[in-house]
Amino acid sequence: MERENFIQDRLLKEFDVQLNHSGISGERIAQRINELATIGRTEDDGSNRVGYSEEEVQAQNRVAGWMRDAGLQVRRDGAGNLIGRWEGKDPTLPAIMSGSHVDSVPNGGHFDGTLGVLAALEVAEAWKHTNYQPIRSYEVVVFADEEGSRFNGGLNGSEGMIGNQNLEEKKKLTDKEGYCFEEVLNQNHLSISSYQSAKRDMNEVEMFVEVHIEQGKRLEKQGIPCGIVTGIAGPCWLEVTFIGDAGHAGNTPMDDRKDALVAASKFIYEVNQLPRQINDSAVATVGKQFVEPNGVNVIPGKVTLYVDIRDIYQDTRDALVNQVLDLAEEISKSFHITYHYLEKTRFKPIPIQEEKQQLLAECMEEVGVKPYRLPSGAGHDAMIIGRHVPIAMIFVQSKDGISHNPLEWSKLNDCVQSVHVLKRFIEKVQ
Amino acid sequence: MERENFIQDRLLKEFDVQLNHSGISGERIAQRINELATIGRTEDDGSNRVGYSEEEVQAQNRVAGWMRDAGLQVRRDGAGNLIGRWEGKDPTLPAIMSGSHVDSVPNGGHFDGTLGVLAALEVAEAWKHTNYQPIRSYEVVVFADEEGSRFNGGLNGSEGMIGNQNLEEKKKLTDKEGYCFEEVLNQNHLSISSYQSAKRDMNEVEMFVEVHIEQGKRLEKQGIPCGIVTGIAGPCWLEVTFIGDAGHAGNTPMDDRKDALVAASKFIYEVNQLPRQINDSAVATVGKQFVEPNGVNVIPGKVTLYVDIRDIYQDTRDALVNQVLDLAEEISKSFHITYHYLEKTRFKPIPIQEEKQQLLAECMEEVGVKPYRLPSGAGHDAMIIGRHVPIAMIFVQSKDGISHNPLEWSKLNDCVQSVHVLKRFIEKVQ
Repeated sequence: MERENFIQDRLLKEFDVQLNHSGISGERIAQRINELATIGRTEDDGSNRVGYSEEEVQAQNRVAGWMRDAGLQVRRDGAGNLIGRWEGKDPTLPAIMSGSHVDSVPNGGHFDGTLGVLAALEVAEAWKHTNYQPIRSYEVVVFADEEGSRFNGGLNGSEGMIGNQNLEEKKKLTDKEGYCFEEVLNQNHLSISSYQSAKRDMNEVEMFVEVHIEQGKRLEKQGIPCGIVTGIAGPCWLEVTFIGDAGHAGNTPMDDRKDALVAASKFIYEVNQLPRQINDSAVATVGKQFVEPNGVNVIPGKVTLYVDIRDIYQDTRDALVNQVLDLAEEISKSFHITYHYLEKTRFKPIPIQEEKQQLLAECMEEVGVKPYRLPSGAGHDAMIIGRHVPIAMIFVQSKDGISHNPLEWSKLNDCVQSVHVLKRFIEKVQ
Repeated sequence: MERENFIQDRLLKEFDVQLNHSGISGERIAQRINELATIGRTEDDGSNRVGYSEEEVQAQNRVAGWMRDAGLQVRRDGAGNLIGRWEGKDPTLPAIMSGSHVDSVPNGGHFDGTLGVLAALEVAEAWKHTNYQPIRSYEVVVFADEEGSRFNGGLNGSEGMIGNQNLEEKKKLTDKEGYCFEEVLNQNHLSISSYQSAKRDMNEVEMFVEVHIEQGKRLEKQGIPCGIVTGIAGPCWLEVTFIGDAGHAGNTPMDDRKDALVAASKFIYEVNQLPRQINDSAVATVGKQFVEPNGVNVIPGKVTLYVDIRDIYQDTRDALVNQVLDLAEEISKSFHITYHYLEKTRFKPIPIQEEKQQLLAECMEEVGVKPYRLPSGAGHDAMIIGRHVPIAMIFVQSKDGISHNPLEWSKLNDCVQSVHVLKRFIEKVQ
């Protein structure tokens, strides 16, 4: 129990109190990060709040209490998303929405998602404190099950809100304990029909803005507290299999081999060269590979590997996917082996309007942060909401780029600066 | 039971009876291959006679019976090797030894090892039939545990005979049921001390000659029944580990990566290019590889792979090992990542004297087989015995190069031709 304030104390130790102004309180943010961190706290001092778990609901309930204290009207939709609404001067205008999620990977950190929720809530706290009344209504949203650790496929809350219709696919999902999507919804006093009813008329929403930790090292390298996201890269995952001939490593001459691993290796090396030829935001990665039969003295007969291809622009991302597939074909031909592939997933990249980026740049300059732009390689709730309404995203510096890990860390100064930027931005887009 | 003659019938169906001459009988060889195949026969009609198992002993006992019937003096040494001796006209001269093994991999074929034993025995049968009396004594030997399936390290019988002194290493071996080397010897009415006593004065042996299936496709491609082995490649196994930085596949720019798999892939591709630059017999293979953490969206932080490097000449094999290690260093430097390696094994290659190859070539011409030379990429008992006495090896054509598999197959005509060559060769080296 003596470590009850384990996060809060560390955050406040290096906090510059001069950042407490305009109704925004670093202490409140630190205290709330700490309080959520105690829910599902792991042995490693990480967070274990898997989507649609008791811990996620407990964290949402804590946030709901703070929302009510701040004067927001609180509801939970049929997909398990928590929404706190501040009615604007003109409630007929589409609302501004901001938020993120409070679920985590099984042994995750205390900033991924949580910071975006607390930043959005802090804007309302600041308005309450300064008696500011927005013209448009403002909604703080906590999306359910963003990480997807339960079903190995996330963004279920935000997809419920936009009414993403691959419900038949979701119905097939089961968690590791064997519970299907429907049963898990039921455990949360939700149902397939409530999930369907969560679909919202997105005309009610003017835009969505999300604060999130970068989960990369660009801002840290630049020494900048927070940055302007230029777009959210949509991943395309390809499973590529090369099939050659297994054989004895001693008795098969070099010129008589169809070595699937040599072909796969040439492919992996060349895939790594492709994104640079396209632009600075495109990436391609082979992260997972299986060799068969995987014996020291056996020429590999089969290699299965996975290519993760991303860019924030759909045309260049799709062009890169085609280049990767062309390369697989070319290499399999040149090695006289066969190959086949499966497209495992293809999310639409969401570019962010230049106008929104420009507005964020102005806000940053106002609070003394040098505007710095960077793409988001990871998917976020904003990627889903962005299919229907304009979005903006603010990234916060992440120590060593570490994420999904108890070591995940962002300095409180950087967090608070991002809230100042967020608040100004929302006030400007009224 | 109706398939009792499953091997014999198939073998004899395509047998040319004109090859039955000089006392050698294709039918006897076929019948004996079949009889041994019934010991440890698997569901797939393969062989399961793991080293130092009841099945291996049962097969050896069957061979011992045939040896006695052929008039050989039979003994079993302290390492579990079975030896049948035909006393020559001058028993003071060092003996000629021929044979192989009757153990198999868990679901192996019916020719690997067995054919070499039956070929050696058939020479004695032929001499008995034709009343031939060799000047030198002749020993038919059945080495114990050549495959090493029990302890994941074979050649235990032949190493016992030459008195290979890494007994301390062998004592550490345990099989998958947890029995150590000593316990397994005890189960076979042997012991560590009997194993040590198996060491033979190799001056008693003039030379060793082994018939074995090729386990490759060279002879099949040439359409030649059997070939002259030019040397036995000694394998060197390197475990090479490349260590980079794991990272998010979406949020890490291409220019800020230390991708261990990209480096390993470049290494694997280039290792494959090296042997060709040395000679025709050298080979290098990466057959086994592990990627960590092996997640679709995670840049690989660590790759561990195994390089199997072989040649029949020690100087070129060792030069190739050094080139592979230089390559690992060069690549790790160019990718700014680290690497380390472990030498897991390094067997001495055994070249075969040109004089012995020439004599085999003469024997082949006499029986109408075009002399064709090829290296042995796999290790054999002859590799161990060859450390102390001159050796010769005759390879027999293998269907599709398949081995260690129930589908392993050699045509009876080719097997019988190899016995004719073996018999003439032994008679010439008297």
